Amino acid sequence: MIYPEKLEKIIEFYKKLPGIGEKSAERLALATLDIKEAEILDFAEGIKEAKKYLHPCSICGHLTDQEICSICSDSGREKNLICVIEDYKSVFSFEKVGNYRGVYHVLNGLISPMENIGADDINLSSLAQRVDHLENPEIILALKSSIEGETTTLYIKKIFEGKNAVISRLSYGLPMGAEIDYIDTITLDRALSDRKQISS
Amino acid sequence: MIYPEKLEKIIEFYKKLPGIGEKSAERLALATLDIKEAEILDFAEGIKEAKKYLHPCSICGHLTDQEICSICSDSGREKNLICVIEDYKSVFSFEKVGNYRGVYHVLNGLISPMENIGADDINLSSLAQRVDHLENPEIILALKSSIEGETTTLYIKKIFEGKNAVISRLSYGLPMGAEIDYIDTITLDRALSDRKQISS
Repeated sequence: MIYPEKLEKIIEFYKKLPGIGEKSAERLALATLDIKEAEILDFAEGIKEAKKYLHPCSICGHLTDQEICSICSDSGREKNLICVIEDYKSVFSFEKVGNYRGVYHVLNGLISPMENIGADDINLSSLAQRVDHLENPEIILALKSSIEGETTTLYIKKIFEGKNAVISRLSYGLPMGAEIDYIDTITLDRALSDRKQISS
Repeated sequence: MIYPEKLEKIIEFYKKLPGIGEKSAERLALATLDIKEAEILDFAEGIKEAKKYLHPCSICGHLTDQEICSICSDSGREKNLICVIEDYKSVFSFEKVGNYRGVYHVLNGLISPMENIGADDINLSSLAQRVDHLENPEIILALKSSIEGETTTLYIKKIFEGKNAVISRLSYGLPMGAEIDYIDTITLDRALSDRKQISS
């Protein structure tokens, strides 16, 4: 073993993180030792605390250190506009865009018959309950276009069939700035069939 | 603030590490939360312990959690062959090569008149003491080819002038597999002047 045991442990931890290989983990572990002791202790406590205190919001399922997350408790948000997403990481992505004024519903998973994950295994039943109390609700489905994503989308569409709720989904099409020559055929096909009229 | 405060702290820590920008730090922090609690606690304790228990070897200055590092206490190592390096990170690089059977002397810095770092500010005085006790010592200088590296190399050469010690330095030249067309002129010049005779 080249590294002292205590250093080896740090390397092993970093290797668990996405995109961090053997070499990067070694570099990060050595760099960690260069950081001031107070900051190290702060970080060590920080990750322990984060693991302990961060939990799903009791309304929407988003990650929070409060009972109700900052988005659900924001009176400026349109509570009848609910964006349904797979996990809380997407909430951060939407919030960075900064234009969305509605709220979220985090499923914490997708329906997957292949992996034996049913509708009861994800945070779905509370969605219908939330929507029941709303006036003119709109549900935006922002799930990925995989089999699981489509299955979940269809399932949610079915739940709200005949109910007073508009269901929409994110648009598919070319990413901004994309060269048409380089786009995959499925996306191009979708962009063509979902084309938008720009003159009347 | 998009992220909960406890998550923000983790992001800030990761951003201190080399090569980790805003986006990577966010990704790593979110991934950290996905790791099992026991492993998080283990890591948190690990970095605290590493910071507490890892210190310079009392003989060579290399990073160790013992009084004397595993290299200095290895009886199979040639104690009269000492490779002098700037910091302990280089020890790991040499050890990975795996062919070096001597020991090290970690300076933990380089002489730098510009930054007011003198010979007394780095781990240098103990080198002469180590060498005094050895039979047929050889000192390999493996310092970088910067002004500071060259200054330190010259200084060490001077210390051992007239003493019974062979001083050598790493060879300069083409990196293995390099295309001559793409090599910088200084390296090429060095490779030319340091050329090695291969027939008698």
